[in-house]
Amino acid sequence: MVFAPRRAPASDPRKPTLNTTNSERRHKLPDSLLRAADQVASEIAKVSSDNDLPGIGEGFRYQLESGGKRLRPAMVLWFLEELGGRAVDGVSFSLAVELLHNFFLIHDDIEDGDEVRRDRPTLWVRVGVPDAINIGDFMLADAYSWIGRCPNAARADLFDVFTTTLKTTVEGQALDLMGRADAEFTLERYEEVIRKKTGRYLTLGLVGAALLAGHPRKRAEQLWRVGDQLGPAFQMRDDIIDLTHGKGRGGQIGCDIREGKPSFLFAWTVEHGNLSDQDRERLIAVMGADRNDSTQQDVEWVIDLYRATGALAYCEQECLRRGELAIEEFRRIGFVPESTVDPFREIAEFIVKREA
Amino acid sequence: MVFAPRRAPASDPRKPTLNTTNSERRHKLPDSLLRAADQVASEIAKVSSDNDLPGIGEGFRYQLESGGKRLRPAMVLWFLEELGGRAVDGVSFSLAVELLHNFFLIHDDIEDGDEVRRDRPTLWVRVGVPDAINIGDFMLADAYSWIGRCPNAARADLFDVFTTTLKTTVEGQALDLMGRADAEFTLERYEEVIRKKTGRYLTLGLVGAALLAGHPRKRAEQLWRVGDQLGPAFQMRDDIIDLTHGKGRGGQIGCDIREGKPSFLFAWTVEHGNLSDQDRERLIAVMGADRNDSTQQDVEWVIDLYRATGALAYCEQECLRRGELAIEEFRRIGFVPESTVDPFREIAEFIVKREA
Repeated sequence: MVFAPRRAPASDPRKPTLNTTNSERRHKLPDSLLRAADQVASEIAKVSSDNDLPGIGEGFRYQLESGGKRLRPAMVLWFLEELGGRAVDGVSFSLAVELLHNFFLIHDDIEDGDEVRRDRPTLWVRVGVPDAINIGDFMLADAYSWIGRCPNAARADLFDVFTTTLKTTVEGQALDLMGRADAEFTLERYEEVIRKKTGRYLTLGLVGAALLAGHPRKRAEQLWRVGDQLGPAFQMRDDIIDLTHGKGRGGQIGCDIREGKPSFLFAWTVEHGNLSDQDRERLIAVMGADRNDSTQQDVEWVIDLYRATGALAYCEQECLRRGELAIEEFRRIGFVPESTVDPFREIAEFIVKREA
Repeated sequence: MVFAPRRAPASDPRKPTLNTTNSERRHKLPDSLLRAADQVASEIAKVSSDNDLPGIGEGFRYQLESGGKRLRPAMVLWFLEELGGRAVDGVSFSLAVELLHNFFLIHDDIEDGDEVRRDRPTLWVRVGVPDAINIGDFMLADAYSWIGRCPNAARADLFDVFTTTLKTTVEGQALDLMGRADAEFTLERYEEVIRKKTGRYLTLGLVGAALLAGHPRKRAEQLWRVGDQLGPAFQMRDDIIDLTHGKGRGGQIGCDIREGKPSFLFAWTVEHGNLSDQDRERLIAVMGADRNDSTQQDVEWVIDLYRATGALAYCEQECLRRGELAIEEFRRIGFVPESTVDPFREIAEFIVKREA
């Protein structure tokens, strides 16, 4: 049992107080990552602008240059330096991680039918499904080429953790797709989906940096434990953002509801929301409806339900708690210098409080 | 200039004489590959039946157990033994090659909108596009896991040639998608598409086997030259089969025409068919039409055009010629034992004469 489900505080469920749409502020990474993120950004720009392959280059650049926080690749360079390594040795791996991330985004957007990301049309809307699948495949192939250019000493281990992460994430996506509008979807299953789908590749940069810094595989892999907490924290924050600020979907709120996506809020409400039969049926019906058949009214009704049952408030609390647990796990990793814990706290806090 | 375009013999374009639908006979590999194919089949059966991942296992098994010739993985074990190695050392790589092949098939079928393969519904028809994309991704991830289990000494090189092949094939698929119903599509472009999309991964098993047998990278990679001939031969045969026996699409003939796929026949006819403006316009129109908008009559008209212009006869001739060139290239590879040339001839002849 991972969650200790309890009712939210008896007071009125608090409304989110953040409400900016200033994209610069929304995307600003914590100070500890800024230098690494700048370095990563210029490397990505190079890779991106160099790609002029017919039928691939344009979409490849469109996807890579659509922004994003560069959180994952920046964590590689930052953590490698914290462990006494040189950032330059982490560049190839950080590129592999960012390409893997974009590969997932491209294919996920097709699978979910998402038409907007980062406030722009998704790649498949721009180039069509066939080309988008193929460009996604290219991203992954390219990611593997960068694995092939990682420093010799760590390359075999980097390959292994990268491949395991790819596989685990795909397994998580399969569970996610299966859970659509599933009335039996539980918090336990949410935990499994998110650990696999989100937690693993969120932590891949940390594990890779530890390998690059010369730590043996077994020690480096202790860091997955951080992801088992940080991944769910990240995803819960995502679930909240979808209901409050919108996830870069051109201001649209409640996309997860339209898609019938098994969010924490959905699982909690079904399991602990003390729903009347009528409310339960309507919730399942809205989640199960085709995304274009859900009315604005339906979506708002579900959001109100999440507030009224306390699901939203509980999710916010749980998100912060899992962020704290991630920091605890990080602190317990034997080889992490004490001075690295504070900057990591900044990163974890960014993840659980970000607005985009 | 790769092709030396010339008109087909002035005599009536010969009709294909082969007309069996006995699937056992159609799929029978040459004797030289039978033992390797049996071994491969039992390894694939193991991998397939072991996969019971939720949301993945069923589709994974459906795809892998749909048959197919197992030509590519069998070539790994056969050639490794011919070079003095032990087949057991090639099993992991042969599985990676077969999984890569199935990954391509799954994604290609979605991209092409193909609903039938090997006389069964394609995976996306069976499980839907979202799951099929994801199961394809899993196949590729799994292929890489098998690369990770290849013998130590060759692993890094196998990884490199595998990744380059993946990338090249995806580039070829992008060119193929771009060439749909393109009136400017030339034989030169066909050659480029097919070398990338078909030739490279058809030869991957040979290159991998040479690496596994201990040959240095540079020598092993001479074998790509065989693929530069064998790939186009393979694809031309495919193009012919589509017009004569049907490519395992439930007896349907002319699928490439319905899809507007830039085949050799199309490129040759546009370039050397001496078409009237009217025929040219109609050909482009049929190729450009949505696959469901092409009538049976349209498709038959195009097939007749391919016969009347001599494109079909020329394609059959050229397919055989490229097969011979592949054997020549193979013979020229310095480290290939003389005794291996005859069994390879059997394989090449199988490729250029198969009926499925």
